[in-house]
Amino acid sequence: MCEAVRNETGRVISAELEKILCKTIPVLDHGFIRVVDYMGNDSSIVQAARVSYGAGTKQVNEDRGLINYLMRHGHTTPFEMCEIKLHIKLPIFVMRHWVRHRTANINEYSARYSVLSNEFYIPELSKIAGQSKTNKQGRADDQMSSEDKSEIAKTLSEFSEKAYEKYSHMLNDLGLTRELARTILPVNVYTEMYWKIDLHNLFHFLRLRADSHAQYEIQCYANAILDIVRLWVPFAYDAFINYRKNSVSVSKKCIDLNKKMLQGEKISQETSGLSKGEWREFIEAFDLKDMIS
Amino acid sequence: MCEAVRNETGRVISAELEKILCKTIPVLDHGFIRVVDYMGNDSSIVQAARVSYGAGTKQVNEDRGLINYLMRHGHTTPFEMCEIKLHIKLPIFVMRHWVRHRTANINEYSARYSVLSNEFYIPELSKIAGQSKTNKQGRADDQMSSEDKSEIAKTLSEFSEKAYEKYSHMLNDLGLTRELARTILPVNVYTEMYWKIDLHNLFHFLRLRADSHAQYEIQCYANAILDIVRLWVPFAYDAFINYRKNSVSVSKKCIDLNKKMLQGEKISQETSGLSKGEWREFIEAFDLKDMIS
Amino acid sequence: MCEAVRNETGRVISAELEKILCKTIPVLDHGFIRVVDYMGNDSSIVQAARVSYGAGTKQVNEDRGLINYLMRHGHTTPFEMCEIKLHIKLPIFVMRHWVRHRTANINEYSARYSVLSNEFYIPELSKIAGQSKTNKQGRADDQMSSEDKSEIAKTLSEFSEKAYEKYSHMLNDLGLTRELARTILPVNVYTEMYWKIDLHNLFHFLRLRADSHAQYEIQCYANAILDIVRLWVPFAYDAFINYRKNSVSVSKKCIDLNKKMLQGEKISQETSGLSKGEWREFIEAFDLKDMIS
Amino acid sequence: MCEAVRNETGRVISAELEKILCKTIPVLDHGFIRVVDYMGNDSSIVQAARVSYGAGTKQVNEDRGLINYLMRHGHTTPFEMCEIKLHIKLPIFVMRHWVRHRTANINEYSARYSVLSNEFYIPELSKIAGQSKTNKQGRADDQMSSEDKSEIAKTLSEFSEKAYEKYSHMLNDLGLTRELARTILPVNVYTEMYWKIDLHNLFHFLRLRADSHAQYEIQCYANAILDIVRLWVPFAYDAFINYRKNSVSVSKKCIDLNKKMLQGEKISQETSGLSKGEWREFIEAFDLKDMIS
Repeated sequence: MCEAVRNETGRVISAELEKILCKTIPVLDHGFIRVVDYMGNDSSIVQAARVSYGAGTKQVNEDRGLINYLMRHGHTTPFEMCEIKLHIKLPIFVMRHWVRHRTANINEYSARYSVLSNEFYIPELSKIAGQSKTNKQGRADDQMSSEDKSEIAKTLSEFSEKAYEKYSHMLNDLGLTRELARTILPVNVYTEMYWKIDLHNLFHFLRLRADSHAQYEIQCYANAILDIVRLWVPFAYDAFINYRKNSVSVSKKCIDLNKKMLQGEKISQETSGLSKGEWREFIEAFDLKDMIS
Repeated sequence: MCEAVRNETGRVISAELEKILCKTIPVLDHGFIRVVDYMGNDSSIVQAARVSYGAGTKQVNEDRGLINYLMRHGHTTPFEMCEIKLHIKLPIFVMRHWVRHRTANINEYSARYSVLSNEFYIPELSKIAGQSKTNKQGRADDQMSSEDKSEIAKTLSEFSEKAYEKYSHMLNDLGLTRELARTILPVNVYTEMYWKIDLHNLFHFLRLRADSHAQYEIQCYANAILDIVRLWVPFAYDAFINYRKNSVSVSKKCIDLNKKMLQGEKISQETSGLSKGEWREFIEAFDLKDMIS
Repeated sequence: MCEAVRNETGRVISAELEKILCKTIPVLDHGFIRVVDYMGNDSSIVQAARVSYGAGTKQVNEDRGLINYLMRHGHTTPFEMCEIKLHIKLPIFVMRHWVRHRTANINEYSARYSVLSNEFYIPELSKIAGQSKTNKQGRADDQMSSEDKSEIAKTLSEFSEKAYEKYSHMLNDLGLTRELARTILPVNVYTEMYWKIDLHNLFHFLRLRADSHAQYEIQCYANAILDIVRLWVPFAYDAFINYRKNSVSVSKKCIDLNKKMLQGEKISQETSGLSKGEWREFIEAFDLKDMIS
Repeated sequence: MCEAVRNETGRVISAELEKILCKTIPVLDHGFIRVVDYMGNDSSIVQAARVSYGAGTKQVNEDRGLINYLMRHGHTTPFEMCEIKLHIKLPIFVMRHWVRHRTANINEYSARYSVLSNEFYIPELSKIAGQSKTNKQGRADDQMSSEDKSEIAKTLSEFSEKAYEKYSHMLNDLGLTRELARTILPVNVYTEMYWKIDLHNLFHFLRLRADSHAQYEIQCYANAILDIVRLWVPFAYDAFINYRKNSVSVSKKCIDLNKKMLQGEKISQETSGLSKGEWREFIEAFDLKDMIS
C-alpha cells in the first residue's frame, strides 16, 4: 500500500515531505513512525487566513510573515487546515498518554481480533534512572550504579519474555479467547495505530510531549514528529519553534517585577511578593539564574 | 491558487475527484461549493480497518464488502481516515445551521476585517411556500397564490438592496467601523468559508442535512456534497446510501408488531400499544401505508 | 469529601440519585463506580427542548411524551444538558476501550506520580472461555474444561503477583523511577479515574458498551451505569431503552423484503438479493429465526 | 422552572453562586445572562487533581496553592471537572462568534419553530465609532461627530423596525413559512440559548472574548460571565486572572533581549533583530513604553 507510487494530482504538495512518504523512521527499540498521507502545506495556512481576514491580510504580503503573525497572535484556525496521517508503533504505556489528545482520529490494532507480537520496550541502560526528588513525575539525574541498571534491564526483559510465553500458552495450548489472554501482557508491549490530526492540534501535542516534563519515551516520538513537521510545513515549523515551543507565559506580577529590575531596583524572593515556587519559575522564565544570587 | 496545477505525489488519489478539483459547483442563486483539497480514498478506509481488525478482516477479502460491513456494523473510525476541504459560499442563515456540526475546521470570511458583497439569497418562486400545519419546522405543500409569492420575492429582494445601501452609506459616508455596520445586514446575505471535515463526520452531516426535514436551502448544499462524495469514495458512498441514508431505526416494539403481522394478525393503532405518533412513524418506517386502512 | 453532606441548593435535583450519591457500587473483583456529582434531571431535557423548539413543543405537553419524541427523532442536543461525574476503578485494558470515547472529561490516577496498588483483575471461572469461531472479537460458548479454566485463573493470578513483586523490587530496592517501573505491570492492573460526561454522549457510550459485542468486562461497568441512569433520569432512561438500545437500524432493502413477506411472498437468501451476511443480519433484526427455515 | 426552589442535596455547592441562581443579569440593551445550573466548586478541581497526581499533590497542602500551581503549569484537566449552564439572550452577530467555541453544549431558540421577538441591538451613542486605522478588526478612538453617531443610531433603529414589519407582514398577512420569513431579519436581532460548558473551556472562551481585541459587544457578555465565575470558584478565578488573563506569552528572543537590557545594554528596534511588529509587541508585553524612546 505504501510502496513508491507516483500519482498525478491537482492538490498542493510538500516536496520535502513527499521524499519520506511511507519511509519507516525508527523510534525506541522496536517502534517507528511512518507518514502515510497528508493534506496541505504552508500555502494552505495562508490561503485559509486570507479567506478569514480578507483585505486585512493584504498588508502582510509575504507568506512567512503572515504565518509568524498568526502564530504570535493565537489565530489558530488556519493551522487546522493542514492534516497529517501517521502510522505509529509504540508501547502501550506511551499510547496511554497519546490518546489523551482527543482531537485526533485513531485506528489501533485490536488485541481482541488479532494476536500481539513478541515485542516489548526495554530501555537502554543510559535511560534507566532513579526517581527524581524534585520532580514527582520524572527521572533523577544519573546516580544509579551500572549493576542496578543491568539488573533492571534484565528483569524487564526476562519478565516480558515470560509474559509472552504465558500469553502464547493460554492462547495456543488452552484455547483461551484473545481478549482475556492479552490481559497478562505488561504495558511495555508494542501496539500500532493510524493517527490522523490537524496541524494546530499537532502543535498542541508537540508543545506538551516534546517538553522536558513529558516522559522520555514519548519525547522520542514527539521529536521524530517535529522533524517530519519541519519537512512538511517549514514556515509554520519555524513560527511554532520561535513563538510557542520556546516561548514562556509570564504573569503581570512578573512583568512588573522585571520592570522594577530594569529600573535598577534590587529584588529578592522576600521582597518580590512571589511564593517560593513562583520565584523559582520567574528566575527560570526570565533566565536570571546568573543575575540573582 | 486553484488553477490546473499538476503535481507528482506518492499519496493515493481519487481519480474522479481530481477531475473536479477547484471547479465551482453552483448552489442556490449566488452560492457555490468547490473542492479545495482531500486526503485518502476508499482504499484508506480499508487500510485503517485492516490495522484495527488485523487477521479479523482477512475473510472479507474484497474492499467493497469490507466497507459495507464497517458501515452496517457502525465501525465508524476507519471512515475518519479520509478528509475533505471545501470552499463554500452560502447565506448566513444556512451557515448558522452548518456550524452546529462541531467536529469540523472552519475559516469564515470576517465582516470585521472586510466588507461583505452585495449578494443576498432570494428564493425562487417555486420554493416560496406557506407554513406547514403538521411540521412545525417546515413548508406546506404549495397552496400560495403566485401573486403572494411574487410579493414575497419582491419584498425580500428590495429589502436586501435597501439593507446594502444603508450598510454602504454607514461605512463609506459616515465612516462607521465595519463590525457595527454589518449588524444591519439580514441573515440572507452571503458569506464564505473553508470547511474541512473527515468522512465519518461528513456522513453524519449529510444524514441530517440531506434529509427532507432539513431546511430546503441547506439540503441543496448537502445534495451537492453527496455528488462530490460519490466521485471521491464510490464504495463508501454506496454503503452510506444503502445502510445509513436510506435506513430507518425501528424499536423492539415495532419489530414485535411486524412479526405478529407476518404471522397473520390484524393490527390497528388501538390494538398496537403505540401512541398515535409512534403508529404514524411505524407505518412510515415499514412502508405500510397501502396495507393498513 | 464524599460523606453525607446535606446542602441547600436552588438547583434541580434527582431525588433517587441523591440516595446513592458517593456510595460505592462494586464491579468485577476489585473495581467500582461511584456517583460523585451530577447536573440536571429529566426536567432539564424538557427545559432545553422548549427553548429550542419554542411554541413547537406546546402540543406535546407532557414531559415523558416530549422526551420520547426527542429520542425517537434524534434530537440529541437537549440530552447534552444533563451531566454526570463518576469515580471509577477499572483494569487498564478496560480503560483503554473507555478513553476511545473522546467527548468526556477524564482525570486518571498517574503511575508517574504515585505507586499503583497490588490489585489485578482475575476473571471468575465462569467467565473464562475459548475464542469464538464466528465472532472474531468474542468468547465462545462455554466448552472449556474446568481444569483448563482453573489453570488459566491460576496463571493470571500468579503472574500478576509476580509482576507486582518485580515492580516493588525495582521501585523500593533498586530505586527505579516510577514511570519506568510501572512498565512491567500487566494491563489487568487496576487504575482509577474521575469521568465526567453529558447524557447524550453517555447514551452513545452505553449503546456500544452495554452491547453484547462489547468485551464482557466493560459490559459490567456499562450495566452498572445503566442502573445509575435509571435512577437519575427515569424518563430519558426509558426512552433510551425503547428507542435506541433495543432498536435496530434496517436498510431500505430489508424494509422492501419484509413488505413482500407481509404480502405473502416466500423469500429465501437466494431470492432476497442480500449477501449471506446481510441475510443473517436481516433474520436477526426482524426476529425471523422461527419463521424462515 | 427557575423560581426560588430550595432542595436538599448531597452535592457540593458554591454558596455565593447559589445567591444569584436564576437571577437575570442584564447585558446590552435587551440581552441577559442567567445561571441555570452548575456542577462543582473550587474543591472539585482539587479533588480531581489529587486523583491524578496522588501523592504528588500532598506537598501542596492548601487548595488555593494547588489551584494556582495547576493554572501556572497548564494542568488543565482538573478544571474540566466543573460545569456551568447559562441562559443567554444575545444578538445573532454575537452568537455567530460564540458558536465558534466548539466544546460546549448549545440549545438555541429556533426561528423555524417559533416567531422571533421584535428586539434588536442598537449600540449606545458612546459605543458608535469609526474604523480603526491600525486595527483591522476594531473601532477607532472616538473621533466621530455626535451628528453622525445619532444618524447611525437612527438608521439602525428605524431599519430594524422596518425589517420586523416586513417579517410580520410576510408571516401574518401572506402566510409565509417561518424558515423563509426570518431570512429578512438583520443580524442584530436577538436570539436566546442555553449554553453549557466546563470551566477549562470557559476560561479559554473568556481569555479570547474578554480581551480588548474582541468585539465590544461580546466583551460585555464575557465580562458578565467573569463576575459569575468569581462568585462560583473564587480560587480558580484568581488563578485565571493572575496567570492567564493578565499573562503574556513571550518568545525566547524577547527573553534574551530583556536580559541584555537588564545587563545594561541599550537596545533599539534596529539592533534588536525583531521585525517592527514584533518590536511593538515586545514593548507592549514587557510594558516598556516609558523606558524606550
